[in-house]
Amino acid sequence: MLAAYAAAQSENDPLSGLVVGDRPAPEPPAGWSVLNVRAAGLNHHDVWSLRGVGLAADRLPMILGCDAAGTDADGNEVIAHSVIPSAGWRGDETFDPRRTLLSELHQGAMAEQVVVPTANLVPKPAGMSWETAACLSTAWLTAYRMLFTNSGVQPGGTVLVQGAGGGVATALVQLGHAAGLRMWATSRDPSRADRALRIGADRVLASGERLPERVDAVMETVGAATWSHSVNALKPGGSIVIAGATSGYDPRKGELNKIFFKQLRVIGSTMGTRDELARLAGFVQAAGIEPVIDSVLPLEQARVGFARMLDGDVFGKVVFTLS
Amino acid sequence: MLAAYAAAQSENDPLSGLVVGDRPAPEPPAGWSVLNVRAAGLNHHDVWSLRGVGLAADRLPMILGCDAAGTDADGNEVIAHSVIPSAGWRGDETFDPRRTLLSELHQGAMAEQVVVPTANLVPKPAGMSWETAACLSTAWLTAYRMLFTNSGVQPGGTVLVQGAGGGVATALVQLGHAAGLRMWATSRDPSRADRALRIGADRVLASGERLPERVDAVMETVGAATWSHSVNALKPGGSIVIAGATSGYDPRKGELNKIFFKQLRVIGSTMGTRDELARLAGFVQAAGIEPVIDSVLPLEQARVGFARMLDGDVFGKVVFTLS
Amino acid sequence: MLAAYAAAQSENDPLSGLVVGDRPAPEPPAGWSVLNVRAAGLNHHDVWSLRGVGLAADRLPMILGCDAAGTDADGNEVIAHSVIPSAGWRGDETFDPRRTLLSELHQGAMAEQVVVPTANLVPKPAGMSWETAACLSTAWLTAYRMLFTNSGVQPGGTVLVQGAGGGVATALVQLGHAAGLRMWATSRDPSRADRALRIGADRVLASGERLPERVDAVMETVGAATWSHSVNALKPGGSIVIAGATSGYDPRKGELNKIFFKQLRVIGSTMGTRDELARLAGFVQAAGIEPVIDSVLPLEQARVGFARMLDGDVFGKVVFTLS
Amino acid sequence: MLAAYAAAQSENDPLSGLVVGDRPAPEPPAGWSVLNVRAAGLNHHDVWSLRGVGLAADRLPMILGCDAAGTDADGNEVIAHSVIPSAGWRGDETFDPRRTLLSELHQGAMAEQVVVPTANLVPKPAGMSWETAACLSTAWLTAYRMLFTNSGVQPGGTVLVQGAGGGVATALVQLGHAAGLRMWATSRDPSRADRALRIGADRVLASGERLPERVDAVMETVGAATWSHSVNALKPGGSIVIAGATSGYDPRKGELNKIFFKQLRVIGSTMGTRDELARLAGFVQAAGIEPVIDSVLPLEQARVGFARMLDGDVFGKVVFTLS
Repeated sequence: MLAAYAAAQSENDPLSGLVVGDRPAPEPPAGWSVLNVRAAGLNHHDVWSLRGVGLAADRLPMILGCDAAGTDADGNEVIAHSVIPSAGWRGDETFDPRRTLLSELHQGAMAEQVVVPTANLVPKPAGMSWETAACLSTAWLTAYRMLFTNSGVQPGGTVLVQGAGGGVATALVQLGHAAGLRMWATSRDPSRADRALRIGADRVLASGERLPERVDAVMETVGAATWSHSVNALKPGGSIVIAGATSGYDPRKGELNKIFFKQLRVIGSTMGTRDELARLAGFVQAAGIEPVIDSVLPLEQARVGFARMLDGDVFGKVVFTLS
Repeated sequence: MLAAYAAAQSENDPLSGLVVGDRPAPEPPAGWSVLNVRAAGLNHHDVWSLRGVGLAADRLPMILGCDAAGTDADGNEVIAHSVIPSAGWRGDETFDPRRTLLSELHQGAMAEQVVVPTANLVPKPAGMSWETAACLSTAWLTAYRMLFTNSGVQPGGTVLVQGAGGGVATALVQLGHAAGLRMWATSRDPSRADRALRIGADRVLASGERLPERVDAVMETVGAATWSHSVNALKPGGSIVIAGATSGYDPRKGELNKIFFKQLRVIGSTMGTRDELARLAGFVQAAGIEPVIDSVLPLEQARVGFARMLDGDVFGKVVFTLS
Repeated sequence: MLAAYAAAQSENDPLSGLVVGDRPAPEPPAGWSVLNVRAAGLNHHDVWSLRGVGLAADRLPMILGCDAAGTDADGNEVIAHSVIPSAGWRGDETFDPRRTLLSELHQGAMAEQVVVPTANLVPKPAGMSWETAACLSTAWLTAYRMLFTNSGVQPGGTVLVQGAGGGVATALVQLGHAAGLRMWATSRDPSRADRALRIGADRVLASGERLPERVDAVMETVGAATWSHSVNALKPGGSIVIAGATSGYDPRKGELNKIFFKQLRVIGSTMGTRDELARLAGFVQAAGIEPVIDSVLPLEQARVGFARMLDGDVFGKVVFTLS
Repeated sequence: MLAAYAAAQSENDPLSGLVVGDRPAPEPPAGWSVLNVRAAGLNHHDVWSLRGVGLAADRLPMILGCDAAGTDADGNEVIAHSVIPSAGWRGDETFDPRRTLLSELHQGAMAEQVVVPTANLVPKPAGMSWETAACLSTAWLTAYRMLFTNSGVQPGGTVLVQGAGGGVATALVQLGHAAGLRMWATSRDPSRADRALRIGADRVLASGERLPERVDAVMETVGAATWSHSVNALKPGGSIVIAGATSGYDPRKGELNKIFFKQLRVIGSTMGTRDELARLAGFVQAAGIEPVIDSVLPLEQARVGFARMLDGDVFGKVVFTLS
């Protein structure tokens, strides 16, 4: 079957290991199901896999892709949840230290077929497009859990999103706006600021700019570079929900004094549960949210999509389709 | 000053005790402020006061009204929070067993001026009309706390509202819809069902009708008549948030077995905090919610508004204005 | 192998269907493990199975028993968690509507061997006796979840336990006392009251007796007969945690008005998770709690233990041992 | 009246500004009450005030002391809660950015009399000594909130306390042990390690020593020096509750990657509420906890107690008594 896969890894030239070509169709073990993929989303995770980060070389060749939507063997339209818990795990699967994502241990979603645990299939809401459905399982799910499970913010509250450009940040602005949160974002780049306003941000600030008032929660994916700004942005009792740190893990100032004196909360957040994905899908459909999509390409042209992401100028998701 | 007040009480003829006439302007004690009222909302609470329920006769004459918006002495546009904690209360004021609402112990809001603890004044969002601002402090605040503090439902979740006609139920549908919840409502009355759909309900069911699927939470203000339906409507772990019981307090079947076996939660909810009111106001403004208003009348015609409510055919709030 | 099993069912003569005799040793499916049982606890659940409640006749013969401790194939000393989720369940297993307990679908614990999902084996703390370990998986786990997951009470708070005699109630008093909660209990029977005081109750009241002050939480397993007393016992914001209703499911007065006006919480609770069982075991060992044991009998004499429970005079657990 | 007060401040010679001498008796404003002090506890906060940290020079002379127990005007035995919210504050008083502690804005507790808001008086449990009662309002209250409001740990869980010597750390070990938590502590000093074991620690590790297994929560008051160890000590989903940072606010490694990938929670915690103090007092009495007391001195000899604390060798509280 056709698939986009990592045949080799290179830190400096990740595209060199990408092959769009034939791979054997997967066989589902007991308790797993085949998904006939109609659309698959691209994430930075896929580029990291090609660079050799998070994917051991002895697992190659590995089909890439964490996001997929399609039909199961009975023709049901479904979305695949990418987080696969280890055998016998009990409770919230995102706390399982041995969990994996599709394309880490099991073959990924950029293929005609992918197999996943049957419990990882979530109904696609009626009327949702395949492209939208293929956006939800990674960045959007991460954003959903950050805002609605972890931030503690109620409608009418104010949320600051650090770094308006990234995929999670874009999803945060769209989701928060649709849920009645006042969404502020920071950006170093005027064109990104403008985009953020168009998709629902109530206000965009320059990086490090003093806020007009303190906020209830900050969504962090930037890390070291914005840490002090995030801490100072919060009301007493406010939360920083952190799901990434693209600028580094070790802020120059840790600000522990402000964290304890203002009784702030720093909440780590990674991906989301199967049930959160199901609610996210329902929310996106009911609220009429249209995830920002940068480009839709047939899977045969996956290399074009990867190249766009490497060039760094995508706004929204890159989606690959199969017919 | 002009005020609408209870001069006497009558269980069967509540309007007989209502006077719209002159009352002395209030003097604010230390820590309290004068609100120059621009609009005041009518609630069933005001009719109960005229019937002699919840208001002791020895407190007459009592200016009625729990909902008010207007300007403080410095001209700031504010909304009055109606819940007044007892001296020295610590923590969430709605748990104070000696709390009162405006018009219960202290003179109420249907007057040219009302005095409230300064901490009970919440900024009116810029651009919000006086009529909207005067809707929020009672039924809408109750609905906000039910949905966003007590239900535990996340965007994309499904909520059933029992009894689509009432003031709290109307607010629940409008608020939940704007926050990305799937709102279902029950109604015995086709015209009310139609209204509910127009303000954001995703589906309206006849009373007691079997649901197409189980829901995450039920909002109860009907009580005995709908109790079994509410219990049966829930998924395992679901919540009934209850803020009233207009059909009675003692259901024929308590359903305790289903409550423990399905691990349901029954959460009592009454009014809301000052901070919840501030967030509600921000949410209503940011999301562009327009509370359903039945009629707007000058305070001089308050009797007309009370009569409409007694006739039972109001849909949305009755608001009295002062200029 | 030797086992105590239900060969037939009788509502009026449950012992008539109990056989202590030979049954085939179980074969563990993939992902399941054999437990060589050293001790198994008796619960009312086992008697209900013999009466035909909760166990379909077409599943007979069924080995009884939800509580077991013993060694796995590698000789590790373990306790079996009795709640078995359905395939593919995600999240807290007690919310799975298709969960079963040992002896409901899969053969139970009163046997030389029982097979359970490997993930259901919890380490027995070093130094804990087999008899103690065999007490924990049902009534004690239920009590643990009620108090520590669901009540919201903090050390120094006061908890009322309705009905001091039962197995869950006994566990509640012992656990709460050891965790720094002030435990009050009600009892109709002076000898049971005395027992409750000996195991850690701070005060025992007659049924329906007015409390000296209101409490933070009530633990309910009695139901209809004590419901109004439970509601009236609570402070504003207090919780009734309910895990059973031996006196009936439908209280004469539902008390919905008090539930909403005092913002009470009624929290259904059933069994507990595997992780809660692990913490319970650690707590019992670390705090030196000695679960009240009524009698320890070799499994060969299981009929004697069942008869004691039917006679209604057990105080604490009946445990069957194997050597 | 006799009082220990700061007459001057010196960073290097804090004792030079301490006077034990005569000060005017305080007059209670409306809503405040006089406490006739029987015992007052010493905290590092008092030394900081003498050094000029946290107390503005223009507020001198200031009677020191945050911890007091004594009798009110009616002879009731009470404990003073030290956190004084600003006028009109609503909700948890520890989130009030304008809150003060006794001796920061209002005269403190080391005197024959102190005045506090009447709502700040908590009943002293019958049978509790004045010395014990005078230990609770600062370090012990801080520890109570850290463990029981903020850590999320249930009985049977494991908690690591960084830095076994300090006042909060000592209280954490005693409180956690009495509540059924497994308490581990770190210490650089063998004699302090030994003390920690004597008061209830289950295990003491050298600073930075690798743990035998990961823990559910870490209690941080050390800060920069222990931060990485704290992060690495936690299970997925675990919590660091931080109430101080004696070794510095800015760890060399912030460890943000581990915080988000393991979904850790960092929870700032400062002091506690009036209601938490009441529960703490009930817990200490009911569980028979005896707070470690270093020395009891008459207030006349307060200088001796301050000198002991400056020498750094106190283990437990220094308490001043009045007769």
